[in-house]
Amino acid sequence: MTHAPITHSPQDPIGRIPVEDVSPLVDAGRRPAKSVVDEVFPVTATVFREGHDAVNASVVLTDPDGGRYLTPMECTNEGLNSWRAEVSADRAGWWTYQVEGWSDPYGTWYHDGTIKVNAGVDVDLMLEEGARVLERAIAEVERPSTATEMLAGAVTALRDTRLPPGVRLAAATDPAIRRELHDRPLRDMVSPTPAYALLVERERALSGAWYEIFPRSEGAHIDPETGLWTSGTLRTAADRLPGIAAMGFDVVYLTPIHPIGTTARKGPNNSLNAGPHDPGSPYAIGSPDGGHDAIDPVLGTFEDFDAFVGRAKELGLEVAMDIALQCSPDHPYVQTNPEWFTTRADGTIAYAENPPKKYQDIYPLNFDNDPAGSYAEMRRMIQVWLDHGVRIFRVDNPHTKPVEFWQWLIEDVGRDHPETIWLAEAFTKPAMMHTLGKVGFQQSYTYYAWRHAKWELEEYVRELAGEAASYMRPSFWPTTHDILTPYMQFGGPVAWKLRAALAATLVPTYGIYAGYELIEHVARPGAEEQVDNEKYQYKDRQWFRYEKGGDREGQSLAGYLTRINHIRRAHPSLSWLRNITFHHADDENVMCFSKRRVLPDGTEDTIIVVANLDPYSTRATTVHLDMPALGMDYHEGFVAHDLVTDQSWHWVEHNFVRLGADNEPVHIIHVRRY
Amino acid sequence: MTHAPITHSPQDPIGRIPVEDVSPLVDAGRRPAKSVVDEVFPVTATVFREGHDAVNASVVLTDPDGGRYLTPMECTNEGLNSWRAEVSADRAGWWTYQVEGWSDPYGTWYHDGTIKVNAGVDVDLMLEEGARVLERAIAEVERPSTATEMLAGAVTALRDTRLPPGVRLAAATDPAIRRELHDRPLRDMVSPTPAYALLVERERALSGAWYEIFPRSEGAHIDPETGLWTSGTLRTAADRLPGIAAMGFDVVYLTPIHPIGTTARKGPNNSLNAGPHDPGSPYAIGSPDGGHDAIDPVLGTFEDFDAFVGRAKELGLEVAMDIALQCSPDHPYVQTNPEWFTTRADGTIAYAENPPKKYQDIYPLNFDNDPAGSYAEMRRMIQVWLDHGVRIFRVDNPHTKPVEFWQWLIEDVGRDHPETIWLAEAFTKPAMMHTLGKVGFQQSYTYYAWRHAKWELEEYVRELAGEAASYMRPSFWPTTHDILTPYMQFGGPVAWKLRAALAATLVPTYGIYAGYELIEHVARPGAEEQVDNEKYQYKDRQWFRYEKGGDREGQSLAGYLTRINHIRRAHPSLSWLRNITFHHADDENVMCFSKRRVLPDGTEDTIIVVANLDPYSTRATTVHLDMPALGMDYHEGFVAHDLVTDQSWHWVEHNFVRLGADNEPVHIIHVRRY
Repeated sequence: MTHAPITHSPQDPIGRIPVEDVSPLVDAGRRPAKSVVDEVFPVTATVFREGHDAVNASVVLTDPDGGRYLTPMECTNEGLNSWRAEVSADRAGWWTYQVEGWSDPYGTWYHDGTIKVNAGVDVDLMLEEGARVLERAIAEVERPSTATEMLAGAVTALRDTRLPPGVRLAAATDPAIRRELHDRPLRDMVSPTPAYALLVERERALSGAWYEIFPRSEGAHIDPETGLWTSGTLRTAADRLPGIAAMGFDVVYLTPIHPIGTTARKGPNNSLNAGPHDPGSPYAIGSPDGGHDAIDPVLGTFEDFDAFVGRAKELGLEVAMDIALQCSPDHPYVQTNPEWFTTRADGTIAYAENPPKKYQDIYPLNFDNDPAGSYAEMRRMIQVWLDHGVRIFRVDNPHTKPVEFWQWLIEDVGRDHPETIWLAEAFTKPAMMHTLGKVGFQQSYTYYAWRHAKWELEEYVRELAGEAASYMRPSFWPTTHDILTPYMQFGGPVAWKLRAALAATLVPTYGIYAGYELIEHVARPGAEEQVDNEKYQYKDRQWFRYEKGGDREGQSLAGYLTRINHIRRAHPSLSWLRNITFHHADDENVMCFSKRRVLPDGTEDTIIVVANLDPYSTRATTVHLDMPALGMDYHEGFVAHDLVTDQSWHWVEHNFVRLGADNEPVHIIHVRRY
Repeated sequence: MTHAPITHSPQDPIGRIPVEDVSPLVDAGRRPAKSVVDEVFPVTATVFREGHDAVNASVVLTDPDGGRYLTPMECTNEGLNSWRAEVSADRAGWWTYQVEGWSDPYGTWYHDGTIKVNAGVDVDLMLEEGARVLERAIAEVERPSTATEMLAGAVTALRDTRLPPGVRLAAATDPAIRRELHDRPLRDMVSPTPAYALLVERERALSGAWYEIFPRSEGAHIDPETGLWTSGTLRTAADRLPGIAAMGFDVVYLTPIHPIGTTARKGPNNSLNAGPHDPGSPYAIGSPDGGHDAIDPVLGTFEDFDAFVGRAKELGLEVAMDIALQCSPDHPYVQTNPEWFTTRADGTIAYAENPPKKYQDIYPLNFDNDPAGSYAEMRRMIQVWLDHGVRIFRVDNPHTKPVEFWQWLIEDVGRDHPETIWLAEAFTKPAMMHTLGKVGFQQSYTYYAWRHAKWELEEYVRELAGEAASYMRPSFWPTTHDILTPYMQFGGPVAWKLRAALAATLVPTYGIYAGYELIEHVARPGAEEQVDNEKYQYKDRQWFRYEKGGDREGQSLAGYLTRINHIRRAHPSLSWLRNITFHHADDENVMCFSKRRVLPDGTEDTIIVVANLDPYSTRATTVHLDMPALGMDYHEGFVAHDLVTDQSWHWVEHNFVRLGADNEPVHIIHVRRY
């Protein structure tokens, strides 16, 4: 802990051409910036030099095999020496990015030469100096032969004293010449920043539609005579998969499927004393039947699990598994490894508590007594599920375990299985939520459920889509099995449509909890979660009743969700986060934003979302579009095609909208250029 | 330039207790933060942990010999996990600073134990756990024997079952016990950030009053018959030193004293053709008499220079020398080292130009053709002046030389002469100005001369006193020999008092150019600098005429400047930068700020400045004081003693002020507590 005295300046060399304030930069460059395959993201820096000569800058991406890709940067603010480029990486893996500042001999000559030749100052001298710069550009930079010939022609013209000076100058300042020197520049004094790590992950790490189920509820049914329940199983839950896939979801997320403890088991509505037939909370993990590496025998076997995963895969669904690193007092670890828990002064194992509240059905794990042993066991347990085809883990309460544990685990798994995705359920303070993203979690639940007003949604999404987007990817959930806000309790069907549509379009990953389509809005008194919560009991939703011909046909939002997911799949602009722009709407309850993406083939996909956030009133107002953000000039117009209602309008910069309870609360508009 | 592929995560371990967002952090920790001896500055960080146990944090300073000093941090925002401490280093040299996050067993026990014992839950168990924590605090942390005895007494009381639980609890939660555990904590899982460099420099690097002279003008006089000038010399200039010292200045800064070139010499008012008797610009350096390591024979010899430096020292003045790294065409380097200049395509040496403008009397140096040789020569030249006692260099246009040159030069000089101070005259864009501070310049001229409105002065000083204060120290100059803004041309004497008083109190280092006290406000037509500028001709200011009994007695601001400098010396709060607070004044032209400093003996020095920024009108308004920033509660009052006028008032939170043209434009108020 002591340090050797510093006897000289420990600072890094500034570089011949200073490059400062590189962004993104995660934890001062100590952790990687992240993107997904082909995701375009901005790199910015402050680049400047002494004196009057021209300065320039490039972004260099280096792929996992060491291949270098150079992208020219553009100066976006001369006074502040701000430079910017948009880059993307075309395959997953560990890349690096860096900014190179450099001296631009052609740029210097172009500036001075144009002024001086036009002013008749040092004419022949300046034209000769231009010829020498272009000769260097030919000799020192690899370029196509046609480009070399073009530059050689310019050299000849510069020296052709029969031509008027203006013509000689023009031969070396033509836009085609400038474009060639822009694309394949002559670079002097190249000054690179350190190579910062860029972790490129698969697209699902950024974008996807999730659907959460309690497997034991899917297929569960009650005997009307005895009042006893028969549990659903992995086999019956698999029967629900076609319905989930048909709605267009990408990921089916299962709450824990492990054996459940009986000691201090909770009964319905979190009551302290469970009855003999109460199934218990799947988050009280572990019984004599096994722990986190086992499947509750009530649900089935590993064969059943493999069949479930296989069926999901056939339907285009990935399976996400819940990882809740806590134990019931009946968990095998309590016997085999008591050192993985906290022992109190009286020799007992500490249960969870938030003094003076007690949670006697849960023993928190303590990784500090035996980090090596406990980390290795967690890794072994994860491998069990990796070996059964799981590549997405939803982590329950990661903020109650050491951050360095997650950093180690995610990195270790990623070494062999880089396609693995971890979603952090860190409903806690911003520092923890952000840092879990920085150390490895691919996705994070967010504060979305508690952000309702226009100003707070705009502020929050700007934060998420700004600097934070380089290390934390948001997942928006309007409700979960733990969260049912007053807004959802009392907003009615309009609120449920609105919050799903917003979640699905504001950010690329969103999720809903089974029953969302049935608008299950009744809360347990005094709690902001559902009454008769599935955490403590079975729920048979009788989906067939909402299907065609059923007695509740038309009472489900399944069709609406299907349409939204269809729009998401058809419009790649919605699978990115950093491409969002907010537009002004006069009404403080009407929010308008757009996403635009230029595809590799040069075509564009642009979506505009307009939402009335007030679930109780219809509102008419005017939205004012930032036309350049839509790829248009202010005077242009376009066909606004509402993908929700299939209506079309002619839209320009300022447009009337009317949204709300008596029709649709949200427009999802596809921009169709004339 | 190619990189080895990255095959695994390159990120740093997050640490058991994460510490994020450390401030100050200069260039992501790649360059040192700076302070001066005994200067208090804040260190902040985001520190948090998993779960519910108590987290805590310390700042660790390590002195140049490896001695470690631990300062407790305080949590300033629980929701954001923000922590803060104020620290200072008591001697110059290379220190380090780092933040340590740690688990706080006493804090955890204090929180849980207080709640549970008071609720009657696990009483004996909690008290026993408290006893064990205090036993560890005794065994594992060095502390005075009286403190050990106090803790041992608490352990005994905790276990004394004859006592009521509340008494046992109180024995271990008493403020004296908590203070002891705060000052000498029991720390688990100590998680340090990297040790960041802290460069501690002498106080003059932050604070000082500067006075600029052209030495040849001091003692210069014209023969009324011939109209010919006799130059001042270093000997006659030394006669001016007592007057400068009497005004209370700390540093006398000399424009260049080297031989001046004759080729293309500039005449009065920057005219192109100098007459035979025109002295030329001292910035056109070099003649057959020598270059940057020589003294113009007209001014004297090295003996005269030594005498000047010696006389200044006797008077408590330091000498600052002007370093202008450019050459006249007559400089010896042009013959000995033509490779240190830029040669054009026609074989000629390039003169300075800003196309199409030409400066044919100046050859810029080019360090790129021979960095090793040219750097070494500059270092040798600086050593000449170091050997003659100069320890402050004012660098002319550093932004026209490579930044990495300055980084190297200042570091190399600092190794043997760490007391050396370099002032950057980088009147250029913010990125260059800031970076020169980051790479080593102790001080920077700033945009002060062009900031006049209240909002822009407040915004700018907040920037300078905030994050920037850890790497860039401002020097405020209301005018220089190159700068005479319209505000100063037309603001009259009120503007000249105001701008000097603001410069002298807003920031710790300020300077004026000789003649400021005479309100020399007439500009050369079309330029924002003085007419008949001393750069091109002699100026005999006939100081004696402004002295007692002189025909211009009372027409000088010397008395005002003397008073301001006296106030600065008597009030140490004014020698710091980061201690500024702005207060609200209703009138948009009236600015109010304060500086407060707690001295090592525990006494306080607090100054409030109130200034009417409108030089044309008297303004009456109300100022509203942020009383806590003055070390008082909102209901308190104090004697406001105006150090400018020696008036006193009773002030409270809200106070009437009346300032302006018909009396004084600025109050400099000493806060005297009842």
